[in-house]
Amino acid sequence: MAHSFRGEHILHGNQFTRESLKEIMDQAREFESKMGSRELLEMMKGKVLATLFFEPSTRTRLSFEAAMHRLGGAVISVASGATSSAAKGETIADTARTVSQYADVLVIRHPMVGSAQEAAGAASIPVLNGGDGAGQHPTQALMDVYTIEKELGTLENITVAMVGDLKNGRTVHALSALLKLYPVDLVFVAPPALKMPGEITAELKQKGVQVTETERLENALSCDLIYMTRIQKERFSDPADYDKIRGVYVLNEEILKGTKKEPVIMHPLPRVDEIAVDVDSHAGAAYFRQVQNGVYVRMALLAMVTGAV
Amino acid sequence: MAHSFRGEHILHGNQFTRESLKEIMDQAREFESKMGSRELLEMMKGKVLATLFFEPSTRTRLSFEAAMHRLGGAVISVASGATSSAAKGETIADTARTVSQYADVLVIRHPMVGSAQEAAGAASIPVLNGGDGAGQHPTQALMDVYTIEKELGTLENITVAMVGDLKNGRTVHALSALLKLYPVDLVFVAPPALKMPGEITAELKQKGVQVTETERLENALSCDLIYMTRIQKERFSDPADYDKIRGVYVLNEEILKGTKKEPVIMHPLPRVDEIAVDVDSHAGAAYFRQVQNGVYVRMALLAMVTGAV
Amino acid sequence: MAHSFRGEHILHGNQFTRESLKEIMDQAREFESKMGSRELLEMMKGKVLATLFFEPSTRTRLSFEAAMHRLGGAVISVASGATSSAAKGETIADTARTVSQYADVLVIRHPMVGSAQEAAGAASIPVLNGGDGAGQHPTQALMDVYTIEKELGTLENITVAMVGDLKNGRTVHALSALLKLYPVDLVFVAPPALKMPGEITAELKQKGVQVTETERLENALSCDLIYMTRIQKERFSDPADYDKIRGVYVLNEEILKGTKKEPVIMHPLPRVDEIAVDVDSHAGAAYFRQVQNGVYVRMALLAMVTGAV
Repeated sequence: MAHSFRGEHILHGNQFTRESLKEIMDQAREFESKMGSRELLEMMKGKVLATLFFEPSTRTRLSFEAAMHRLGGAVISVASGATSSAAKGETIADTARTVSQYADVLVIRHPMVGSAQEAAGAASIPVLNGGDGAGQHPTQALMDVYTIEKELGTLENITVAMVGDLKNGRTVHALSALLKLYPVDLVFVAPPALKMPGEITAELKQKGVQVTETERLENALSCDLIYMTRIQKERFSDPADYDKIRGVYVLNEEILKGTKKEPVIMHPLPRVDEIAVDVDSHAGAAYFRQVQNGVYVRMALLAMVTGAV
Repeated sequence: MAHSFRGEHILHGNQFTRESLKEIMDQAREFESKMGSRELLEMMKGKVLATLFFEPSTRTRLSFEAAMHRLGGAVISVASGATSSAAKGETIADTARTVSQYADVLVIRHPMVGSAQEAAGAASIPVLNGGDGAGQHPTQALMDVYTIEKELGTLENITVAMVGDLKNGRTVHALSALLKLYPVDLVFVAPPALKMPGEITAELKQKGVQVTETERLENALSCDLIYMTRIQKERFSDPADYDKIRGVYVLNEEILKGTKKEPVIMHPLPRVDEIAVDVDSHAGAAYFRQVQNGVYVRMALLAMVTGAV
Repeated sequence: MAHSFRGEHILHGNQFTRESLKEIMDQAREFESKMGSRELLEMMKGKVLATLFFEPSTRTRLSFEAAMHRLGGAVISVASGATSSAAKGETIADTARTVSQYADVLVIRHPMVGSAQEAAGAASIPVLNGGDGAGQHPTQALMDVYTIEKELGTLENITVAMVGDLKNGRTVHALSALLKLYPVDLVFVAPPALKMPGEITAELKQKGVQVTETERLENALSCDLIYMTRIQKERFSDPADYDKIRGVYVLNEEILKGTKKEPVIMHPLPRVDEIAVDVDSHAGAAYFRQVQNGVYVRMALLAMVTGAV
């Protein structure tokens, strides 16, 4: 029988199995098809989503809110920590219990690792982790897996490169947690100071994933797919170190010309200059399609955890 | 004939009679019952609520917005003063007249006492006071009365203690304004510097309410219901004074063990440490139910003032 | 055949013809009539409007959002730049492409001249300019023209005065761009330092509009209509200069008493003291009706560019 997800929290990349991932992907695909044929969906009519964003985020918040509206539901929102009861010293648990009285499902983004887990422990409604600091961002990972499968046609026997700040990037951590369920080869491209944490590579290898670690972007170019990430200036004590690296991990048209078969290119966005604008028109430039897929995957999650499907 | 409320403003605890309160409570009860049976309500479809919050507030704003959505209506919102025309020097009256062109009903929170009254004087739509500084917060008082009646089964011949900062707490002022309509005994527990204002106790006594004033929390424990409030640090010039009081007016499991019959416990939230977390699981801990009741009461108010019921 | 507007951006006052303006006005009038008869409109059901406001604005944002809700649509919103990906260094083009994946139509306000054009160049959905710095604000101009025609019964052979800061006021620039399509006489009332830019008056004259420039408010009083604007303190290096001018361009009851036939008075709001409150009750005081007309015009624009009508 299918894993239902009704009433479940979505907190961490590790909570999924291949079977449960398939269920989400199937549901997302169904919504994508219905949206494509301009079908009017109203299965969340009368339902309320609360988005609590204690950190700025256009993308994740708007994506969830659009998903809710596309299902016919309504949204209540706290778009920044400053306007909230948190300023009066309320705990995350109390906030979550309170919002449980207003809404049917809650998406939370909070700078503290473990905050979404804490909210879920207190809430009486399903909680979706919209990013907990340097911790997890599982719905980003889910839309990434959905995009990879859609772009490459499969999640099996593929080579995926991840490039940039692999040490601090919660996106690549969460994506790795999902990809280890599939027979994939991973190439990690990062400067020594920003390498993928050892416990993540160890776990991947233990699950049978072949992992290659390198400093050279060139080593990624023969992969089926390159997942670029932003290198955040604020991680560097010396600005010169930042500028050095920033200039190295850049995809542009010239580099792509040198590839035998152009890879699919993804990015969690926003980008700064890791991907030159001249790449945008390439067939493999999938980062804006990735954004759109995020809406379908979040529609699936919202509908599944609330029992609307 | 019933008091209709259509087109009326909700501004001050003193505007109600027992009859008009009963009308609101009956309507809130009806909505609670419909929500409990998962009935889809659409009586506000096509209608717009404007929430103008010139002060941070998660709770009141989200509660009103959820209430509007549960009735099938839509919401436009200014979540903080900084993003509004007020920054360009607009008067509250002009803002209210402007928003009257956009919406069918307006909820305003503003730091200035009398601001909601000012908005109501200029608006061509019903205005609900969502808190005007140290002034009033009538919808909080209405949900509190609704909760008291629901928890105790009656509003007659009950003893209610209010604890904490009774001087500055608009919640307890507004609640007192409503409770004086009923045959209740009130126990006010506060340090001398934070006593209930004399004009309020005088008015209560004049209406026949028996009022007891005390500094000792113990004197509240035999009441049917204890209404705890947060003592706000910013009211004290000397932090040591704050810390002394803060440690005294605290409900926890140990204190409750000493009671013959455990009282119902309410709190307008957010709490800091006035109520220990170990109290949350007690049958009488009503503060999160109180939050939920707020949605039903606000649904009733929105529907009644706009003539949707 | 009618100009359809489907899929078009609304960016600049110069993009309209008398024919295309008539189409918008006719549609706005139809919506005004339907709203007046309390007809429930649902033609935007399932559709999403994104409002991206990188500058504070109550009025324009709420007006668009109310318009969308009155058509049965939903809204996702960024109410201030601080909460957005722009803080992470994203370009306007990338933001526009991203939001195109979430919504069916986008309204953007941004402090940089040309920003809306930039967004439109990258977006795959229609973009409406909600104000680009000192540049344009075309939907304001459209609601102003709608209001003028409604108040005076015609756009032909009328005299319109514009008063205040004509140099920096994007509202009067955009309105001039539309009025030059009609046989009107314009009177520009401003201090020398805040005169209407020469290229605008030149273009008006070239189109056959009779333009009179003056410093004296008295010269405006015999016009059919006076369009007042706010003089912004921040434009003056010497506060004394501001105070001098501010006291001069003020409409009040006493001044209006001196007119043979009272003019219609408009203002883009918020006002500070350019129009005394004692004018509000005059039959010709059209500024709050103007706000209401804004909703009808924006309903028309949203429905037309998305192909909902």
